[in-house]
Amino acid sequence: MTNHLIAHLGHVELLTPRLAETTWFFTDLLSMYVVKKDDRSVYLKCWGEFRTPFSLKLSQSTAPGLGHVAWRAESAEDLEKIASMLQSSDSAAHWSENSEYGRGKAFEFSSPEGHRNEIFWNITEEETPPQLKSKIRARPLKMPNGLMAVRRLDHCTLFSSDVKAVREFYQSIGFKYNEGVISSAQRIESGAFLAVTGQSHDLGILRDITGAKGRLNHVAFYSNNVGSWIEGCDVFLENGISIEMGPMRHGITDSLGLYIIEPGGNRIEIFHGSYVNYTPIGDWTPIITDVDSESGRFGTAWGLGFLAETWLTYGTPIVEVSEETKRSIRKSREAYTHFAYEFK
Amino acid sequence: MTNHLIAHLGHVELLTPRLAETTWFFTDLLSMYVVKKDDRSVYLKCWGEFRTPFSLKLSQSTAPGLGHVAWRAESAEDLEKIASMLQSSDSAAHWSENSEYGRGKAFEFSSPEGHRNEIFWNITEEETPPQLKSKIRARPLKMPNGLMAVRRLDHCTLFSSDVKAVREFYQSIGFKYNEGVISSAQRIESGAFLAVTGQSHDLGILRDITGAKGRLNHVAFYSNNVGSWIEGCDVFLENGISIEMGPMRHGITDSLGLYIIEPGGNRIEIFHGSYVNYTPIGDWTPIITDVDSESGRFGTAWGLGFLAETWLTYGTPIVEVSEETKRSIRKSREAYTHFAYEFK
Amino acid sequence: MTNHLIAHLGHVELLTPRLAETTWFFTDLLSMYVVKKDDRSVYLKCWGEFRTPFSLKLSQSTAPGLGHVAWRAESAEDLEKIASMLQSSDSAAHWSENSEYGRGKAFEFSSPEGHRNEIFWNITEEETPPQLKSKIRARPLKMPNGLMAVRRLDHCTLFSSDVKAVREFYQSIGFKYNEGVISSAQRIESGAFLAVTGQSHDLGILRDITGAKGRLNHVAFYSNNVGSWIEGCDVFLENGISIEMGPMRHGITDSLGLYIIEPGGNRIEIFHGSYVNYTPIGDWTPIITDVDSESGRFGTAWGLGFLAETWLTYGTPIVEVSEETKRSIRKSREAYTHFAYEFK
Amino acid sequence: MTNHLIAHLGHVELLTPRLAETTWFFTDLLSMYVVKKDDRSVYLKCWGEFRTPFSLKLSQSTAPGLGHVAWRAESAEDLEKIASMLQSSDSAAHWSENSEYGRGKAFEFSSPEGHRNEIFWNITEEETPPQLKSKIRARPLKMPNGLMAVRRLDHCTLFSSDVKAVREFYQSIGFKYNEGVISSAQRIESGAFLAVTGQSHDLGILRDITGAKGRLNHVAFYSNNVGSWIEGCDVFLENGISIEMGPMRHGITDSLGLYIIEPGGNRIEIFHGSYVNYTPIGDWTPIITDVDSESGRFGTAWGLGFLAETWLTYGTPIVEVSEETKRSIRKSREAYTHFAYEFK
Repeated sequence: MTNHLIAHLGHVELLTPRLAETTWFFTDLLSMYVVKKDDRSVYLKCWGEFRTPFSLKLSQSTAPGLGHVAWRAESAEDLEKIASMLQSSDSAAHWSENSEYGRGKAFEFSSPEGHRNEIFWNITEEETPPQLKSKIRARPLKMPNGLMAVRRLDHCTLFSSDVKAVREFYQSIGFKYNEGVISSAQRIESGAFLAVTGQSHDLGILRDITGAKGRLNHVAFYSNNVGSWIEGCDVFLENGISIEMGPMRHGITDSLGLYIIEPGGNRIEIFHGSYVNYTPIGDWTPIITDVDSESGRFGTAWGLGFLAETWLTYGTPIVEVSEETKRSIRKSREAYTHFAYEFK
Repeated sequence: MTNHLIAHLGHVELLTPRLAETTWFFTDLLSMYVVKKDDRSVYLKCWGEFRTPFSLKLSQSTAPGLGHVAWRAESAEDLEKIASMLQSSDSAAHWSENSEYGRGKAFEFSSPEGHRNEIFWNITEEETPPQLKSKIRARPLKMPNGLMAVRRLDHCTLFSSDVKAVREFYQSIGFKYNEGVISSAQRIESGAFLAVTGQSHDLGILRDITGAKGRLNHVAFYSNNVGSWIEGCDVFLENGISIEMGPMRHGITDSLGLYIIEPGGNRIEIFHGSYVNYTPIGDWTPIITDVDSESGRFGTAWGLGFLAETWLTYGTPIVEVSEETKRSIRKSREAYTHFAYEFK
Repeated sequence: MTNHLIAHLGHVELLTPRLAETTWFFTDLLSMYVVKKDDRSVYLKCWGEFRTPFSLKLSQSTAPGLGHVAWRAESAEDLEKIASMLQSSDSAAHWSENSEYGRGKAFEFSSPEGHRNEIFWNITEEETPPQLKSKIRARPLKMPNGLMAVRRLDHCTLFSSDVKAVREFYQSIGFKYNEGVISSAQRIESGAFLAVTGQSHDLGILRDITGAKGRLNHVAFYSNNVGSWIEGCDVFLENGISIEMGPMRHGITDSLGLYIIEPGGNRIEIFHGSYVNYTPIGDWTPIITDVDSESGRFGTAWGLGFLAETWLTYGTPIVEVSEETKRSIRKSREAYTHFAYEFK
Repeated sequence: MTNHLIAHLGHVELLTPRLAETTWFFTDLLSMYVVKKDDRSVYLKCWGEFRTPFSLKLSQSTAPGLGHVAWRAESAEDLEKIASMLQSSDSAAHWSENSEYGRGKAFEFSSPEGHRNEIFWNITEEETPPQLKSKIRARPLKMPNGLMAVRRLDHCTLFSSDVKAVREFYQSIGFKYNEGVISSAQRIESGAFLAVTGQSHDLGILRDITGAKGRLNHVAFYSNNVGSWIEGCDVFLENGISIEMGPMRHGITDSLGLYIIEPGGNRIEIFHGSYVNYTPIGDWTPIITDVDSESGRFGTAWGLGFLAETWLTYGTPIVEVSEETKRSIRKSREAYTHFAYEFK
């Protein structure tokens, strides 16, 4: 078994009903560079991304949501190998008929509940214009002077009505299952964190308690500097972007998280910290947190008492959240309301 | 009018029913140095405090709470001047009969609702033992190797059933009124932030909605480094100390706050950021936030949706909080529950 | 004796032969706001400055240098008091005949070797335009999204051919002498750090070993965040601004320093850390470092082996540095070249 | 071609003539945990290391230096594969006859100039004692309360008299060649940075201009937090450990570096930042800096004018550095002495 058919997350396409405002968010607040525009889409790149023509594609749409997630194969052979594996198990998977900016031929497939994915090998990068060249040769682009300038696309976290099925699908194409969250009482999985690199996760999967299928929870970008990560919260504040959750420590993945909703409606994470785990896939036992036997603070180690209710229900596309669902979340928390008194 | 009778906050005495555990908290987690112990008390100092024999006195008691707050006069003459001002207005104010470690004669007085204070001029510092000497001559003590090592005592925040009365009292002895929080609808003051230095506040006063008098909300210590301030949250986590509120940005005072309850039960803030305001007292108009006309995020600019309920009710000594009080806090918040959707 | 005649450093005027480029440096790299322009000058302000119409004035000139340093009096009475003190000792000191943007009547005087100063009381601030208003009421202006956005003017450091004379002059008008550097062997003072606030220094004085009089060493701005302070070095790098010295720890003043030369030729410090010292002036004994008996690292506690040679000789206006002067600096350092081996 | 035979750097053995003092350095300053001691050696581990019994072995010796570097294979099969590759090319390479604490069978080999290496697959971790368990399940050990607590072993940098030969050797067993430094005029390589993970380098190779073979330049540990990385310099200062070079930005590898000599004499780097580069090995063209055509600041982008002379000559074991070598370094720098004036 190997996790090396896929090298890394290549790019993510986000759909937005407000393309101009969404573009403003990524360029003016996160200091990403626009590398190309066409009729329907804007392509952006962070300053610290190697060998990729772009990492974020924003496309005008009627509603927010995930367009697709794109992965880079480890080699031309690995692309063929993964394509043939997928074709044998999924009749809908197919070589793409679209030519996408910056990449060669690509194979398209979907997760078991319809999240669109593609994988490719060949890429074409355009020459960096002089004004974007860094003074540091090992830096793909000039570092912008922005407090919240993000260094690179980090990971994508899907909402799923069936975490187990989606997790097993990605494991079948070589993802390493680093961490999981289960409820032994309810016999369900509520979260899974998988990687193709040494990161804690390149792909997150969270249970969508609304029951909707194929939604997006968030796309995460890496903040390079814990000082900027924390003081940069003020960048969102000063520019009218509400912070939904964080700054906080997630116990699971041991990461620093901060979530905002971009003007188009998609949730974006500004991510920092977390671990690297280079343990070979053949020697790795996933770290599993059972929410029914856990006394600790697995979701929110600090930063707030609980995961925000909206973080558990809001995704894109947006769906109605039933009162019953909201009540059940609130009910599950009543026991915790006096956390300040734990010292007694 | 002058704010220069008092030079700075000298020390705070905290009462604790668990002296050993409280001392552990300040030495092992906040990396303060014990400079003296006697039968009932432990005296501690931070590494960055100039000309003070200690800044925190911990005294064994049956319950947590504030012993007293001690201020250093600007000069010997100013001590006499303030004493004579206070004696003429308050028959209970008097020259102290106690000799306290490290200071000369002191004048004792109380706030309008009984918070004990003293003011002194002369101090005696003992020679720094060799192992505590810093390699930097301008550093009072060796900087400890602790992620949450605090540099100095920053401020003390009182709970008060009558913020206006307590505020006006401190203004009468020269404090500058930097910021205030009022409710024009309820015709009450709910917060006041006063300074004798260029800090945003050396003294905070918060409305105690339980109606109790003379309680302590918190004592704050300054964290020297925003990176340690944020990653240091894990120091509390790893050592079983629950973070009650934060990390967060307070809109009022523009500060970074983080609150924990030390094992004796007193609330401690790890404080960073905030402004300096050197505007002369004669040209300063307090910044007043009216909670009834304010649409912004004055208490919690980011970090969580609201000030934690316990932060508004829990103080030391501990009093019972009525269900009605809790309900009224929760009621006032219902309008805010969907803050994640502000972007719409 | 009191240090309270003067409240704080009000603004600094810098002369520049390249006004456009110098303005670019302060607006595009340090994220300061231009609040006014006239024929010859540009007036700028940082986001965190209270009650001041501006803090930096840039004026077109044939050569770089200090225009003047402006101080705010503690009160109208204190302005008169200081004016009358100065008039009695210096026949050239006089009430200003110039009306400066934003301030009322001012008294002009010079240091013993000609650095121009003024002091004023009345100020006029213009209404903040809506797009510069902060979401935080206690924040004077909107915090910019810049990694190197400076919060406020911090201090001004003069070069002087006679440190003692200049130091004693400022002490005579109420400055507190926090720290000094002397050579007992040479019987000279080589540095003095004085304050009117709780800062380590609002005014620095460094010996100008070229023998020139009345020059400027640097003007310092406060960086709000140690993470930005260090990663922000890359902002200078990416924009072709050479870092002359730092990032480093100064032993004296216990501060984090970083020096760049702005395009007009003046040295600017990005300053962070340092101590606050609220000790009353009547109880303060200056911390004196004697370079002849000191084994420690007083200038550069870490960051580099020595103070950069240029930092000791380059000032504005620029003067020729003799080969003998350069040789004498290099000679004094020969003993230190193997500092890496101290552990032996 | 694949870089996946080796999963990651497993541990490094350092030789020290002062085992107690070296152990103090790693435990008291870097907050590493001692996991085992035997007659001659101490085994240590950082708080953030997954699936490794230890990452640093300190062994008593007559002189400082590198014991060996140990790599973990990607799988049992990959261990056999690499062993058979090496046996066919190097008659001295062999299966180890030593049983090392915590690992199963291992294959020993040397670099072309004698740096000792081993590679293994099986490991045995002991149960974590309760007092070292973290409250965060995904954290291998409790995070210590240390400003300079390092999260994990990062990389090892060898000195080599023939960089090209050593680089090609490691490439032959699957290392990816991320960056190199050459002199086209002298027709030599002076540096190479290679990785088996997504890091900028797991292995560095630097030209040893003394001509010695098989020495160590440094071992690097990762600091988790840029705030601690910079303020933690004071931990070394306060404890009498001289900082040889840094804090600085290396242009090559785009990393933040800080070098100290531990009491046994070996150079240790506290490392932060740098890039991750997930580009597949089959699509990667090394970034080559030619020192003869480069006008930029490749070694030291900021932090000091040049790489410290000792950093280029001092390694372990220690050898005599000829006066000619020192002169040639100084000569090469004369052109740079006025870097502060670049703005002109």
